[in-house]
Amino acid sequence: MDALNVKHYMEGIGRAARAASRETAKASTAAKNGALLAMAKAIRDSRDALLVANAADVAEAKANGLEAALIDRLTLTAKGVEKMAQGLEQVAALADPVGEITDLKRRPTGIQVGKMRVPLGVVGIIYEARPNVTADAAALCLKSGNAAILRGGKEAIRCNQAIAACVRAGLRAAGLPETAVQVIETTDRAAVGYLVAMPEFVDVIVPRGGKGLIERISKEARVPVIKHLDGNCHVYVDADADASMALKIIENAKTQRLGTCNTAESVVVARRVAAAQVPAIAKMLMAKGIEIRGCAETLALVPNATAATDEDYYTEYLAATISVKVVADVGEAIEHINKYSSGHTEAIVTENYTHAMRFLREVDSSSVMVNASTRFADGFEYGLGAEIGISTDKFHARGPVGLEGLTSQKWIVLGNGEVRD
Amino acid sequence: MDALNVKHYMEGIGRAARAASRETAKASTAAKNGALLAMAKAIRDSRDALLVANAADVAEAKANGLEAALIDRLTLTAKGVEKMAQGLEQVAALADPVGEITDLKRRPTGIQVGKMRVPLGVVGIIYEARPNVTADAAALCLKSGNAAILRGGKEAIRCNQAIAACVRAGLRAAGLPETAVQVIETTDRAAVGYLVAMPEFVDVIVPRGGKGLIERISKEARVPVIKHLDGNCHVYVDADADASMALKIIENAKTQRLGTCNTAESVVVARRVAAAQVPAIAKMLMAKGIEIRGCAETLALVPNATAATDEDYYTEYLAATISVKVVADVGEAIEHINKYSSGHTEAIVTENYTHAMRFLREVDSSSVMVNASTRFADGFEYGLGAEIGISTDKFHARGPVGLEGLTSQKWIVLGNGEVRD
Repeated sequence: MDALNVKHYMEGIGRAARAASRETAKASTAAKNGALLAMAKAIRDSRDALLVANAADVAEAKANGLEAALIDRLTLTAKGVEKMAQGLEQVAALADPVGEITDLKRRPTGIQVGKMRVPLGVVGIIYEARPNVTADAAALCLKSGNAAILRGGKEAIRCNQAIAACVRAGLRAAGLPETAVQVIETTDRAAVGYLVAMPEFVDVIVPRGGKGLIERISKEARVPVIKHLDGNCHVYVDADADASMALKIIENAKTQRLGTCNTAESVVVARRVAAAQVPAIAKMLMAKGIEIRGCAETLALVPNATAATDEDYYTEYLAATISVKVVADVGEAIEHINKYSSGHTEAIVTENYTHAMRFLREVDSSSVMVNASTRFADGFEYGLGAEIGISTDKFHARGPVGLEGLTSQKWIVLGNGEVRD
Repeated sequence: MDALNVKHYMEGIGRAARAASRETAKASTAAKNGALLAMAKAIRDSRDALLVANAADVAEAKANGLEAALIDRLTLTAKGVEKMAQGLEQVAALADPVGEITDLKRRPTGIQVGKMRVPLGVVGIIYEARPNVTADAAALCLKSGNAAILRGGKEAIRCNQAIAACVRAGLRAAGLPETAVQVIETTDRAAVGYLVAMPEFVDVIVPRGGKGLIERISKEARVPVIKHLDGNCHVYVDADADASMALKIIENAKTQRLGTCNTAESVVVARRVAAAQVPAIAKMLMAKGIEIRGCAETLALVPNATAATDEDYYTEYLAATISVKVVADVGEAIEHINKYSSGHTEAIVTENYTHAMRFLREVDSSSVMVNASTRFADGFEYGLGAEIGISTDKFHARGPVGLEGLTSQKWIVLGNGEVRD
């Protein structure tokens, strides 16, 4: 496709999505759930075809020298196909958020004023290698009454198109327009540029991928973007922490998985307990192969640690490295975290009520925890059923974004002929 | 100030606001309310000085040939000063939204997950002639735990600075930083350009003013903007409407005030009752000096009407003109409204339950009403206590924006040492 054709193609996709969004917005819960279950069946029935398409994608990616981590994300297994189908069934089982009326209150004038939850309209999702996002994103957008335009990575194009066919089959089976979920067929990069700059057709963009992708899209976008940036997460060990709980939480938060956004990248310790706890924490982490980069006080307590630079405290390592900082008290811990954190998730370990409440209130991150591992910051763990991403923005949606983040609330007024004085 | 100085000045304002926002975020309810009551007292005590400053602004505006409507908005009376003080007291009386914990639920893992309401941070407000906005906006931002940067119209600069002094006196009396509310002292237009493009210091912009101002700011902004665009509001008279109720609601919605954003600009009537109701509606409106622009069917029923163009249906007149359109039924009414409306406020008049529910659900506007006047779309009428504007966006805040729209919710997790499996 040349540039003019890409523009024309994307406008066609946009126009069809806008029209479909009017149908999905008023679709019954039964129709939406019927479509999701039919998609799950189509995906199970197409298992072999999906694996063949994916194998072709993987072969080409390998031939092109794609790095191992990306190949890993790209690869779909029979178990992965089953998980995709189950994911669709799980979204079908969630309560329908659309049309929910809340906070209805009678005013002195006689009118009743409340809010009704409604879809955003058309959601554009831009993602990289993982083909399962195609099914997950389609499910969340449809259940929340939106139409979706999906743009996957070019490495996954064959498998994404095969999944798209299953999604369309499900929509058709339920009598919903097939254009309710469209997967962009061109791998031309210009398509993304058009997708994020059509406010007349697209209401919000959700980029899922690396920092580079998200920054580029935020810069180009002419519609709101639900951003998922770094996860530079902290665990603060308070002077009144239970020492064994702190050790257990840090172990889980840092070492359960090194490469996730809710992994802890920094430990902050209150001075009063530093001499007792920093060596124990460092020993546990180093036994698991984690390198320690510490402040001067940490270095005095942990001979094998290296000195942390200011840059270290800002860093999301996504690797076997952690920074350690000793602070005076909970106040300095909050200051340190609010300065260096990316605003994703932070935890305090403490038995002190006032410190816990102060940390909860004053730490300015999308998730703030007391006596729990940062690894819990996740849509499934929070009970959202599924998530489309984790927002590090304060606007609209914050933290794990599920069905609710893909909706808005309008005001409704129920009257009996009232007029204003 | 030259350009470089304006930039330097605005960065200083931004930096001070960011620092102050950390204090306002954790300020106690008592401190915030104390500041609001002290501001009210300072404004009452400064009544004469405020009137003198305003008189100088008005004299200059008249000398510069400012149009009468703007002079009217600019002019402050003794009663206006008292209303400003009362407005501050009303905001003090509202519940504090900051720190409110909701939806706390225990998950199967043992953690409790909920949400805590928190300030957005620093709010920038750009407004035109009305000096009372200075006090209103300061109050709403402070009560919601935010720091504010206010930029009023250059016509109101003396009065705004005098009000700003009262605001600072109130903050000082309550032990809060005076930089929690800053009123920009330069009238240089470049200041606005810097204000909307400092994401490191400003979290959201609220423009209050004409469409031109809002469009310009939306284009330049590098932070989210809470937009208040047109109010092209509709009243739909259903086939099952109570005729006298329809007449009463249209009279109020169109004629109570011609120039407000929640004034009806279009009447849509179901064909089955058009012959009976359109002439009565037209007669009532024309008796009040309203010009009718109608579709072909309307013209056949109302000899004095003129033909409506497609452009008429898109128009927010803010004047003694209204468009009238006859449609087949509630379905066509919803389609017509969703096509031509600006998404502000629409009302249906009907005794039919199914039509009412369908209209509520399918009309895509920030406020949707049954059997009530569109004039009720207002923060005070909805019980928000005060409003900073009416958002026609779907994102973050929709409809009248009060304290809640100036906050966000973060997730909180209360654990007992839980880690993730």
